[in-house]
Amino acid sequence: MKLVLKIGGSIFFKDGKYDSELIAKYARLVKDLLKDEVIKVERIAIVIGGGSLARNIVSTAKEINPHISTAFLDFLGIQSARLNAELFIAVLGDLAYPSPPRSFEDAVIAAKSHHKVIVAGGFQPGQSTNAVSAILAELLGADILVNVSDVAQIYDKDPQEYPDAKPLEQISHEDFVKLILQNQQEPGKYQLYDLVGAEILKRSKIPLFFVSGTNPNVVYRILKGENPGTVVGRFGESES
Amino acid sequence: MKLVLKIGGSIFFKDGKYDSELIAKYARLVKDLLKDEVIKVERIAIVIGGGSLARNIVSTAKEINPHISTAFLDFLGIQSARLNAELFIAVLGDLAYPSPPRSFEDAVIAAKSHHKVIVAGGFQPGQSTNAVSAILAELLGADILVNVSDVAQIYDKDPQEYPDAKPLEQISHEDFVKLILQNQQEPGKYQLYDLVGAEILKRSKIPLFFVSGTNPNVVYRILKGENPGTVVGRFGESES
Amino acid sequence: MKLVLKIGGSIFFKDGKYDSELIAKYARLVKDLLKDEVIKVERIAIVIGGGSLARNIVSTAKEINPHISTAFLDFLGIQSARLNAELFIAVLGDLAYPSPPRSFEDAVIAAKSHHKVIVAGGFQPGQSTNAVSAILAELLGADILVNVSDVAQIYDKDPQEYPDAKPLEQISHEDFVKLILQNQQEPGKYQLYDLVGAEILKRSKIPLFFVSGTNPNVVYRILKGENPGTVVGRFGESES
Amino acid sequence: MKLVLKIGGSIFFKDGKYDSELIAKYARLVKDLLKDEVIKVERIAIVIGGGSLARNIVSTAKEINPHISTAFLDFLGIQSARLNAELFIAVLGDLAYPSPPRSFEDAVIAAKSHHKVIVAGGFQPGQSTNAVSAILAELLGADILVNVSDVAQIYDKDPQEYPDAKPLEQISHEDFVKLILQNQQEPGKYQLYDLVGAEILKRSKIPLFFVSGTNPNVVYRILKGENPGTVVGRFGESES
Amino acid sequence: MKLVLKIGGSIFFKDGKYDSELIAKYARLVKDLLKDEVIKVERIAIVIGGGSLARNIVSTAKEINPHISTAFLDFLGIQSARLNAELFIAVLGDLAYPSPPRSFEDAVIAAKSHHKVIVAGGFQPGQSTNAVSAILAELLGADILVNVSDVAQIYDKDPQEYPDAKPLEQISHEDFVKLILQNQQEPGKYQLYDLVGAEILKRSKIPLFFVSGTNPNVVYRILKGENPGTVVGRFGESES
Amino acid sequence: MKLVLKIGGSIFFKDGKYDSELIAKYARLVKDLLKDEVIKVERIAIVIGGGSLARNIVSTAKEINPHISTAFLDFLGIQSARLNAELFIAVLGDLAYPSPPRSFEDAVIAAKSHHKVIVAGGFQPGQSTNAVSAILAELLGADILVNVSDVAQIYDKDPQEYPDAKPLEQISHEDFVKLILQNQQEPGKYQLYDLVGAEILKRSKIPLFFVSGTNPNVVYRILKGENPGTVVGRFGESES
Repeated sequence: MKLVLKIGGSIFFKDGKYDSELIAKYARLVKDLLKDEVIKVERIAIVIGGGSLARNIVSTAKEINPHISTAFLDFLGIQSARLNAELFIAVLGDLAYPSPPRSFEDAVIAAKSHHKVIVAGGFQPGQSTNAVSAILAELLGADILVNVSDVAQIYDKDPQEYPDAKPLEQISHEDFVKLILQNQQEPGKYQLYDLVGAEILKRSKIPLFFVSGTNPNVVYRILKGENPGTVVGRFGESES
Repeated sequence: MKLVLKIGGSIFFKDGKYDSELIAKYARLVKDLLKDEVIKVERIAIVIGGGSLARNIVSTAKEINPHISTAFLDFLGIQSARLNAELFIAVLGDLAYPSPPRSFEDAVIAAKSHHKVIVAGGFQPGQSTNAVSAILAELLGADILVNVSDVAQIYDKDPQEYPDAKPLEQISHEDFVKLILQNQQEPGKYQLYDLVGAEILKRSKIPLFFVSGTNPNVVYRILKGENPGTVVGRFGESES
Repeated sequence: MKLVLKIGGSIFFKDGKYDSELIAKYARLVKDLLKDEVIKVERIAIVIGGGSLARNIVSTAKEINPHISTAFLDFLGIQSARLNAELFIAVLGDLAYPSPPRSFEDAVIAAKSHHKVIVAGGFQPGQSTNAVSAILAELLGADILVNVSDVAQIYDKDPQEYPDAKPLEQISHEDFVKLILQNQQEPGKYQLYDLVGAEILKRSKIPLFFVSGTNPNVVYRILKGENPGTVVGRFGESES
Repeated sequence: MKLVLKIGGSIFFKDGKYDSELIAKYARLVKDLLKDEVIKVERIAIVIGGGSLARNIVSTAKEINPHISTAFLDFLGIQSARLNAELFIAVLGDLAYPSPPRSFEDAVIAAKSHHKVIVAGGFQPGQSTNAVSAILAELLGADILVNVSDVAQIYDKDPQEYPDAKPLEQISHEDFVKLILQNQQEPGKYQLYDLVGAEILKRSKIPLFFVSGTNPNVVYRILKGENPGTVVGRFGESES
Repeated sequence: MKLVLKIGGSIFFKDGKYDSELIAKYARLVKDLLKDEVIKVERIAIVIGGGSLARNIVSTAKEINPHISTAFLDFLGIQSARLNAELFIAVLGDLAYPSPPRSFEDAVIAAKSHHKVIVAGGFQPGQSTNAVSAILAELLGADILVNVSDVAQIYDKDPQEYPDAKPLEQISHEDFVKLILQNQQEPGKYQLYDLVGAEILKRSKIPLFFVSGTNPNVVYRILKGENPGTVVGRFGESES
Repeated sequence: MKLVLKIGGSIFFKDGKYDSELIAKYARLVKDLLKDEVIKVERIAIVIGGGSLARNIVSTAKEINPHISTAFLDFLGIQSARLNAELFIAVLGDLAYPSPPRSFEDAVIAAKSHHKVIVAGGFQPGQSTNAVSAILAELLGADILVNVSDVAQIYDKDPQEYPDAKPLEQISHEDFVKLILQNQQEPGKYQLYDLVGAEILKRSKIPLFFVSGTNPNVVYRILKGENPGTVVGRFGESES
């Protein structure tokens, strides 16, 4: 089993500081997964987003220098995500490759030196950490990508706007891409997921789970066959 | 005037070999632009695609190793684009920064050491050279992005399918993004342009020209105010 | 005039977020200094500490993984300082070298490519950003090192403990090193300044100012000959 | 058994495109060698030349910019060889170290991380890929260097000029170096092999096989003790 | 057992040349340690100083260019130490990671690729190779740091000055730091050890042995429980 | 005028230590050349050999580990040459690019950032510093390569063996290559110059001077049109 885990940065850094209790639980999860003799995890790659730390630094830069290019702001987001990744590496200790890769090439080389856990932040402007996790899942031949964030489930419509929006248990990769495209066409609307990431997962048929990040145990439940959120594609069966 | 020029790789490498005559014309164009006292070019950044060399190498790899991840194939495309970029650097001689940057960070550092011309290929899997040219345009604060390829103009519908498709002289960034989204929703359809690239140009209001690459002089004509193809956004006036 | 400015990270990041108003003032200071025709600044190198962001991330890591080596925690501090440095680079825009150097060798190479402002964070475990600023001052042949932080002045004794501690206007490099050594001998005591840094400034006779960071204008006042805090060594006269 | 395999780039890229059938056979050869329980291959390092792709790009650059330094053209050859190497890495998949090393230092470090197959292109101007393969053979302590190209055998004189030239089955390293020197003294003559490479193989007594690259099986035959081409030095016995 | 060994550069390079006999003995020591089934060495990291080669090159540079910054001279010392480290790597052959790391990050990554022996020189200006060895010991979780040099033992006072100075068998980390601080306060006095290094070993409670480097066997004796020099802290028992 | 200067390492390091007096003279030469208003030096690139320091370290490694590959020993030679280069950079201070380039690509990039003096050691195994200086001369478009060493002149035969050997004032590139080839054919004979280097200078028609390194002023005399040693090719006239 090869697993890519995308952890939203706001899970880690909230209200101006790191949430050590929750981070500790995620570290425990990784340790438990590596030892689980049923799931047999061969590789875990973790991508951590910049979250609210990134948003704070980006808005500060923009406020002071309104003419700054958005692509330059992306460097700040990348650096924030890398800081979050360094923290998680420190917490995992010997289990993790000792520094976040700087590029996909680095990540693949790190994976070749047989370490079980690689922790990355972002790489390049113009690429969200969601896209990074999808590309990494493809490069490493992952069986599953789990996205833990404050999005606990995907809805068939924007739940903010439509009170009758229904949470989905499952959606095909094709329909997921369509849903993103529909939302993207109406500006200011509910931003579901990075389109590039969704297209990559579609072409490689890698299942993507959305689950709430407040309790890391959901990852365990997913790997054991439960579905505590929304799954894009199918896990454990071939999608045709 | 800061100009980013995206040159489709198939302009350079055609029918299994480099087209030295056309490449020489592009080198001449760059030299002339740098000397032009009316246009006053302060910076030219050039992004060259992988083109048919990339397509050939990617299809070879896929044919032999069908299980290879698409993201890994991107490395081959990036390397092909870099080879095309190295050739153009060789041809420009002292005018160009001596090697293609490996990342946006590299590109920005190269730009800071006061060289007039930077020539890049691709950087990372999951990012087309069109996206690279758009992000670079944003990072360098470019006034214009010119896309020379075999797409001479943008049509209001897929010209392959609709005989009454009309070429557009101008389209707003907003409508351009919508057009891409419409096309993307129907699989197998006419792939206009990279959506990430279009969104970046929209947010930074950088005009994008589509022109045929067979005669490099069109770039000159654009900078002098003509419109020999399709312009996305507006050049020479503020878009509001 | 070559100036190295050490800015305590807590000046920038306070109470869980970046203080955009104060950061904007520091950016303005740098711009004004570069234009000042009396002071004639030839080079500004800025080192930014990790501050409270670093302290928060380090204590989080330690809390979760108590067996982590302190040297590894230093990586987190370095990365936090680098994030602060990236923010200040973004805010300075074209004035600054576009990324924080990764080593002293990088910093010297960056300085050779004729940029006026270099902004660095930390480099290596076992080296405080105070030491980094002192070594950089030596490498670049700086005329002065200004340390802006929440330490507005140096006292002759620990002011927390001795109510009669007197703030100093001036102290020689030799006496400053002695003062640090005295404090260091009593564990738990008032940590004045990094001893390695103080020794380096002593051997190169580079004056060091301590001033409160709440109003960036103090830097201006120092360069104009005033002394709004404590000076170690002498500025504007030779020390013998 | 440690094997270095030099594959002429023209074996891979012919008539303007990659020959996927032949490349697939070479990939199969590598896989079979690694599994062969008689030959017991401990390490395979593969150096791929730039071949006709390199020749095409170099002649294009020279045609457009006749004043370009030959050393700069070497960069184009190196980049072409690296592209060929990347393709072969993609084709080998998990068997290969994921990117071509950039220097001998890189190659040795890659070898230390226990991967069975390393695939390289060229490294530096002024060094042919034949020299690279010889130096790599020395660095890795190879038992044999096999050179597959369109040179199926070595002749005692230039076969183009002398109809009575005889193909050699075996030649000592000393006589091989002399033969190269003789040829090199008459300009425009038959360029046998890189002199630097030949000297290195001589000093380290590493046997070098020349065989035709059209059927990869010849490599198997060599490792099993046959001699389907010309051997420089001796394989399987000590040379004294 | 994880061991860090600091070897003074003057052990290796003496009277203008390398002492091959002694270096060979150190290589033999490393080989023997790795095979010893009682001591069970899991990791050896070796830091080699610049020694008299460094002192010679630094004094040459200073003599010719008296205005050179001391920090720049440190680069020369680092480079000398790295040359000494490269020699020891060459001598160890396949046992050692093939090149000296350039930073602590590099060193940790090298350690993660499962090599038994890492050999380093210095990293950054302002940091002695003694400090490097202490930080590395902390980063790698070493059980012991052995310092072989021409300092065979630590004395309770400066033995040059006080004829009644007594060599110490053991001293606590706290007292060792105090001793260094006392010496540092009297300029021109006996420079015991790098204060930063001593503080790091104190905080991590890693025992430090001082022994004469003339006979490498002392390292063996230390690991077997003898004390042929001075030990700072305690080895083989917990210090409380 | 673009000048490449190759300085034999034994000029700098003799009898186990650096010759500060002679090194100071070379630094003075560089400073004077840069200011000379008649010669108008636009660029000086200096390549320094490993010399006797390299020979000492290589023979030490070989003595201890006789099975070490010759290519690995080259790393030691490269590192020694780099140390010599770092010393000369320290001595030149602000005039020089602050660190020796690690590859030709690095060297070209350094040259692009407008520094007047670049100082290099070696780059890669299998390439002598003589070859490096010739390739660099070609890459930078040098007008002349001056080789200062203990070879004051080239002889028509081996002067050790033939008492009637005559020193040459001038020799064509073609005859120089032939002379090297003749010598190379008789093993143990007088090793004139690196063949790869000679071939490169021949193809680019860059004149090469051999002069004794004991008095740096000879370089001045050469640039003023004198010939105090042997010139290969012609300087100041076109060779046809």
